[in-house]
Amino acid sequence: MDATEFRKRGKEMIDYVADYLENLRERKPFPDVVPGYLRQMMPDEAPENPEKWEELFSDIERVIMPGVTHWQSPHFHAYYPAANSYPAIIADILSDAIGAMGFTWASNPACTELEVVILDWLGKMLDLPPNFLFSSGGTGGGVIQSTASEATVVAMLSARTMFIRKMKEDNPEQEDTAILSKLVAYCSDQAHSSVERAGQISMVKMQKLETDEKSALRGSTLSEAIERDQANGLLPFFVCATLGTTPSCAFDNIRELGPLCEKNGIWMHVDAAYAGSAFICPEFRPLLNGVEYAVSFNFNPHKWMNVNFDCSAMWVKDSHLISDAFDVDPLYLRHENQGKMPDYRHWHIPLGRRFRSLKLWFVLRLFGQKGLQDYIRKDVQLAHEFESLVRADDRFEIVAEVIMGLVCFRLKGSNKANENLLKAINDDGRLHMVPSKIKEVYFIRFAICAARTSARDIHFAWKVIKELTELNFGTKINQQS
Amino acid sequence: MDATEFRKRGKEMIDYVADYLENLRERKPFPDVVPGYLRQMMPDEAPENPEKWEELFSDIERVIMPGVTHWQSPHFHAYYPAANSYPAIIADILSDAIGAMGFTWASNPACTELEVVILDWLGKMLDLPPNFLFSSGGTGGGVIQSTASEATVVAMLSARTMFIRKMKEDNPEQEDTAILSKLVAYCSDQAHSSVERAGQISMVKMQKLETDEKSALRGSTLSEAIERDQANGLLPFFVCATLGTTPSCAFDNIRELGPLCEKNGIWMHVDAAYAGSAFICPEFRPLLNGVEYAVSFNFNPHKWMNVNFDCSAMWVKDSHLISDAFDVDPLYLRHENQGKMPDYRHWHIPLGRRFRSLKLWFVLRLFGQKGLQDYIRKDVQLAHEFESLVRADDRFEIVAEVIMGLVCFRLKGSNKANENLLKAINDDGRLHMVPSKIKEVYFIRFAICAARTSARDIHFAWKVIKELTELNFGTKINQQS
Repeated sequence: MDATEFRKRGKEMIDYVADYLENLRERKPFPDVVPGYLRQMMPDEAPENPEKWEELFSDIERVIMPGVTHWQSPHFHAYYPAANSYPAIIADILSDAIGAMGFTWASNPACTELEVVILDWLGKMLDLPPNFLFSSGGTGGGVIQSTASEATVVAMLSARTMFIRKMKEDNPEQEDTAILSKLVAYCSDQAHSSVERAGQISMVKMQKLETDEKSALRGSTLSEAIERDQANGLLPFFVCATLGTTPSCAFDNIRELGPLCEKNGIWMHVDAAYAGSAFICPEFRPLLNGVEYAVSFNFNPHKWMNVNFDCSAMWVKDSHLISDAFDVDPLYLRHENQGKMPDYRHWHIPLGRRFRSLKLWFVLRLFGQKGLQDYIRKDVQLAHEFESLVRADDRFEIVAEVIMGLVCFRLKGSNKANENLLKAINDDGRLHMVPSKIKEVYFIRFAICAARTSARDIHFAWKVIKELTELNFGTKINQQS
Repeated sequence: MDATEFRKRGKEMIDYVADYLENLRERKPFPDVVPGYLRQMMPDEAPENPEKWEELFSDIERVIMPGVTHWQSPHFHAYYPAANSYPAIIADILSDAIGAMGFTWASNPACTELEVVILDWLGKMLDLPPNFLFSSGGTGGGVIQSTASEATVVAMLSARTMFIRKMKEDNPEQEDTAILSKLVAYCSDQAHSSVERAGQISMVKMQKLETDEKSALRGSTLSEAIERDQANGLLPFFVCATLGTTPSCAFDNIRELGPLCEKNGIWMHVDAAYAGSAFICPEFRPLLNGVEYAVSFNFNPHKWMNVNFDCSAMWVKDSHLISDAFDVDPLYLRHENQGKMPDYRHWHIPLGRRFRSLKLWFVLRLFGQKGLQDYIRKDVQLAHEFESLVRADDRFEIVAEVIMGLVCFRLKGSNKANENLLKAINDDGRLHMVPSKIKEVYFIRFAICAARTSARDIHFAWKVIKELTELNFGTKINQQS
């Protein structure tokens, strides 16, 4: 494909994409294909000779689209959102064209420097304590990770390194693995599966602590766990606190957890993957109080801030604690200006990295802080609107306080009835949702996901849910088992 | 930005990108900014209100471009290539628009299924043994990782899990960390820094083994290391063999290493991050012989196969060995069709994943296998052309056999003279290269990187190198210290 054809086809794709996103209500959000559908439509091998654009382009609708779960559909209410916006898409075109790796400052100074500035912008929008920012002139700063999972792994591995070094100061002959065998990390029983996985990777004990009636991890629970484990000769070294859990968007009480961690020399990592974006609104910022006790903090602009995946923003107060765990320094990556700007290769697991701050920069400038606040507020408002519809129907109940863009609801009835209802909804295909379960109570999660979701989509969703409820359960819903 | 403006601005960006890539010879590949240049050009905070597109767009040339290391410049010869092509850029626009996570089959069936088919296509192009492919109907298959670094980490962590389980079969009361303390992994002294980092993450001992005169790790060296370590009570469990090392594009002898690993129950991971793309040419495929002994194999289409970062292709013979190490299974990610198609979330560290097989699919169809072979052959030919120019000048020497698109050369003289020459080249700015060092001999790496690099760029580069040599050393080059 030469430049002339790229100009033509690239612009056709721009139009295809605008058509796709603007007309997504016409597609069912959840596909009805069966596993293996695609292989049957494809040759067994790559073509020997180049194919024509037209052949490929027509296969997008023939082969791909029938099997896509349309996360950008206004009728998609599963998981949490995957952000998507026109400015971010355009920024990614530029990032792809530059096609440069930013692993060191020298390998692409603009990539590192824009990231430094934009992560400070973003940190200020969240009103993070200044010692998390480069602009404080200290050791703090932000970095773009691929996912919150990776941020958790990076934090836990860094905490492991820090803690083992500290233990060896007092007892230098102790083996690293002997210390490792006693390390224990904590999270709530509501924490994301990636925290458990981080524990597997780090090879440390993970304790999932019980949460209160609001699904929040409280200080007293952590305190008991620390005391119990210390009494058993274990070494508590890490807490992953969640702000906006995946099951129900609950908030761990970091104002209680933080001082406990500080007192016990425990690294508190705060994972606000979904909810973090909302902290740019003053009315939600109090939920972040306590972050001043955190060693590291993370949220995903690629969830709820109009920045396409991948873009997970992480801040640390002392970047040396991370680079201590990840620094390897071969000659071919050394450069004259080491130390003056971060070499982000020491801040994460991969070496190569895309120019991802471009999409944050495009989004922040073209939405403005106010535009992004409006976006968050609109989604929260829609969630409350859906909540009102549920509450007005006495066959249903709300199972968790609606704080952000997630509504957790269920039929008043058995778990089985709710499983059946959700299956009916997803089989129907006009909406898509996923379930969760807390303390043995199964419920349905209704998340406001797509940028184009509006009040009419909320009412449409409720209409479909009621229709399928009546179709499947008639009026005997409370008696179903 | 509404759809109308997106159509306009998106198309402007398509034109900007085509202009940028087609006219890259006019820009110096290596920027002459100093650390901190960008912060001075930027406000301290994100704008309160949305800015106009024009303001943002003009800042690309004002703020970003002066600090970009232009990896796509035909005069960029540093590191290894970062692939970039028009079909891949267009595919990424589509991927961004769909904006769907493919962590489970259900979360985006098309994403998982296209990846399954395309990784089989690609595996067949490399003539991988069938047990690495889904189409064999066994437990093997391919997955897209973000980077080769991550593939190495995933392989090493999986090997760690497998080995510890195996040890516990004989001795169930043994503690995991006690086994861990004895695990030892091997790579050559030429292996990428990411292998060492994988060892840090896995908390295992890493032995960097000495290479032969061609910088290759040989069976006899590994054999001695295994015997020595076993005699010391250690447990060899993992070898990372490299095909196409970063310093000099050397090839470990996997036909010797493989049987040794098999005999000793050691997981052999083959990292062909750069060179792997060349194995689609029959004349280079013999370098991959021995891969039949590998448990896992990886190469980066995002280096040398026209697919934009990130796209690191990894195959395993038994995917359960990976999912054993990474499987966590919360309710909100469960779906009806588990087990019929891979749930790729069990195959890597992150949970979220982009629809990256699209760009592989676009590239394979629009280049065709022959087009990609031609691309590889062109670069290897250019490398040999540069080699001839170097060999024809008796002030210079070639320090490693030129096999692929990398030429390692140096002035006949001291390391210091070569450091000075490289500094002169990079300060001059018309070219960009990085150094390496093997057995205390410092040399300059000249890699064929950009898609548009042609014979005239090779001759231009040699002209500049000669000019700077004469300017800096006159005719007394052999006497310089």
